[in-house]
Amino acid sequence: MAPDSPGSAAAPEGGRPSRRRLLLGGGAAAVGGAAALVGADAVLRGGTGGPGPAPPEERLNGQATVPFHGRHQAGIETPPQAHGRFVAVDLGDDADAEAVRRLLRLLSDDAAKLTQGDAALADSEPELATVPARLTVTFGFGRGLVQRVAPERVPTWLGPLPEFSVDRLRAEWSGGDLLLQICADDPVTVAHAARMLTKDVRAFGTVRWVQDGFRRAHGSEAGGTTMRNLMGQVDGTVNVAPGSEDFERIVWDRRDNPEWLRGGTGLVIRRIAMDLDKWDRLDRPGREEAVGRRLSDGAPLTGENEHDEPDFDAVTPLGFPRIAEYAHIRRARSADPSERVFRRAYNYERPATEPGEPDAGLLFVSYQADVDRQFVPIQRRLDELDLLNEWISPIGSAVFAVPPGCGANGFVGETLFA
Amino acid sequence: MAPDSPGSAAAPEGGRPSRRRLLLGGGAAAVGGAAALVGADAVLRGGTGGPGPAPPEERLNGQATVPFHGRHQAGIETPPQAHGRFVAVDLGDDADAEAVRRLLRLLSDDAAKLTQGDAALADSEPELATVPARLTVTFGFGRGLVQRVAPERVPTWLGPLPEFSVDRLRAEWSGGDLLLQICADDPVTVAHAARMLTKDVRAFGTVRWVQDGFRRAHGSEAGGTTMRNLMGQVDGTVNVAPGSEDFERIVWDRRDNPEWLRGGTGLVIRRIAMDLDKWDRLDRPGREEAVGRRLSDGAPLTGENEHDEPDFDAVTPLGFPRIAEYAHIRRARSADPSERVFRRAYNYERPATEPGEPDAGLLFVSYQADVDRQFVPIQRRLDELDLLNEWISPIGSAVFAVPPGCGANGFVGETLFA
Repeated sequence: MAPDSPGSAAAPEGGRPSRRRLLLGGGAAAVGGAAALVGADAVLRGGTGGPGPAPPEERLNGQATVPFHGRHQAGIETPPQAHGRFVAVDLGDDADAEAVRRLLRLLSDDAAKLTQGDAALADSEPELATVPARLTVTFGFGRGLVQRVAPERVPTWLGPLPEFSVDRLRAEWSGGDLLLQICADDPVTVAHAARMLTKDVRAFGTVRWVQDGFRRAHGSEAGGTTMRNLMGQVDGTVNVAPGSEDFERIVWDRRDNPEWLRGGTGLVIRRIAMDLDKWDRLDRPGREEAVGRRLSDGAPLTGENEHDEPDFDAVTPLGFPRIAEYAHIRRARSADPSERVFRRAYNYERPATEPGEPDAGLLFVSYQADVDRQFVPIQRRLDELDLLNEWISPIGSAVFAVPPGCGANGFVGETLFA
Repeated sequence: MAPDSPGSAAAPEGGRPSRRRLLLGGGAAAVGGAAALVGADAVLRGGTGGPGPAPPEERLNGQATVPFHGRHQAGIETPPQAHGRFVAVDLGDDADAEAVRRLLRLLSDDAAKLTQGDAALADSEPELATVPARLTVTFGFGRGLVQRVAPERVPTWLGPLPEFSVDRLRAEWSGGDLLLQICADDPVTVAHAARMLTKDVRAFGTVRWVQDGFRRAHGSEAGGTTMRNLMGQVDGTVNVAPGSEDFERIVWDRRDNPEWLRGGTGLVIRRIAMDLDKWDRLDRPGREEAVGRRLSDGAPLTGENEHDEPDFDAVTPLGFPRIAEYAHIRRARSADPSERVFRRAYNYERPATEPGEPDAGLLFVSYQADVDRQFVPIQRRLDELDLLNEWISPIGSAVFAVPPGCGANGFVGETLFA
């Protein structure tokens, strides 16, 4: 469960507090500095005893858990884990609504177990399940799935994005009926959870694509540090804070969404390839002008600190804008406060053996209640004019509806069957 | 530098102690529990000031460094980091001995900088270099490189291993003139270092293969926990301890190696594919019998604890051996104490989209002074009879000579030119 406000440590909705877990609220003082890195909605698991303080050797990030059940699905408000795997599934032709329901029940049950450090129902390697490391599993529904279950309740924005001139989309990284977003601070945990959940899917469909992403490891940097992408840029400075009013409005606001999506949101994932060799030929002033921010600390070219508000009206002594017309941060900004999204991106890199053919870039992942009204206008402005387009190309794109969370006896997606 | 004995914290050989570094010996008390996970040879960097205690927010694993300079190369005695990338390079036809010397000087200089959290000489993204996270870079020389520089000084064992009947080797994962072993606890750090070092190579050769591996994240488990592989087995229980007499003899003993390898060793890397789906169809008793150890804790079937010595003479009431003749641990064990190696393995997994075609397994990496006398006899026994061969296939293989470390003004491999 993503708690209603950061720092809260609630019992699983619809269930009793687990004996195995030591809530962060009780253990934070003893855990000290490490707790700050765990993230506000993680809890540290104690041993096999009651809810007393765990012995020191068990206060490991590997034992930190994020509740699975709750009003919203976890993995969105959750402070980003170091590793993320995104698995898109195509449903088989014979997977009807009842089959989809069985699949979602199975996936929800196994995700609930795995995220708490317990083995999946038919876990073939249960010993690999014992290190949850803040594992979250978040499910998203593509247009194909919703159409199969409740064709009259497909959100208007659920489907391929409009074409953008920068797009170089490949089918192998695009589309899909069902998304599994699997994130944890430990790569073995992600591998195991992905394997177990993918096995659940086998009787119902086939894997369409798998995209792996990474950020700084747990404990590498102080909590709250904005990530850098593989171009070296501070990436994601302007983002809404989970728990804020803006977040509620931008991510969870139902607006005109169908009733079954109340407490859910929309997810856009774009695989944005970076031409790093070409980028490296640009000098640092050129790079900073392209983005509108300093490379060293991410401060806007008109400011001193990363989170300073950019002054888009500032001009140089010669009268040119300090932040260029084509700078990324100017183009990404809208005067319309509804045109905002919540970003939760990962770097990706597939080491290439072919010289000059690396496959590296950013898995851009954003959450917004209405993809058409919030994401599309931003992308249109970037498509029209953004100097960064010289070095980046979207090569994959998919949109999913993220249903609300569920209680301990429910399953993610149950509202679609109501 | 890999220190002469674990726990020592020596100044870089041939250089002065760096002002930027806070040696573990001085800071351990304040760092507390986190230090145990950092590993005995890592040091935590302070701020820009002197060697006083660093402020709490800088005591991050991301700032932990392993000395690059020393008698041995780092990355062997170093407690395994969470992420490892192995890059094999084929030298260009026109890369003569002098070119190889220039390349090694360049690589050593950049590796020395990057491992200490400093930007490479021509670093295009210097901000990505600031989180060393125990980065080590270890160089290995294939037969092709040594032949090009000093053909009369090629170790007898340096070249392809003899063919084994279990092998299903693919050229794309085998061989190579030069190996870069890049390990760190942070995936962004590995990606950046690999990119910078691969750029150094461009004028001298081409990348032959890249293999990525992972283990549990830093902070996931208590220090010293034996890893589990993707089959769920405790993997590597019988291993020599860095700093022990056995380690000295098995890894660093020169024996009949050429003089330039004094302080160096031999490296074998084998890509061992696992048929996980087939493995999952075996029940737990069957799995335990195949290995000779309990899945739950890795204890031998004749013992109670992981590190108990197996009793190969024990029999069941019906007179059958408790540890079967074909069990992996029996076949891997030699009565000859010289037939041992030091293992430092990584899991690998390339998510497949084709159903039934996952590419997952173990990057088996071992270090031994003499590959022919130490590694080959073990592998022969496993090749003849090891039940695990039903589920695993070596699909890549390469052997490298690992030269000794160097001082602050030297470069790795300089002894080959002496």
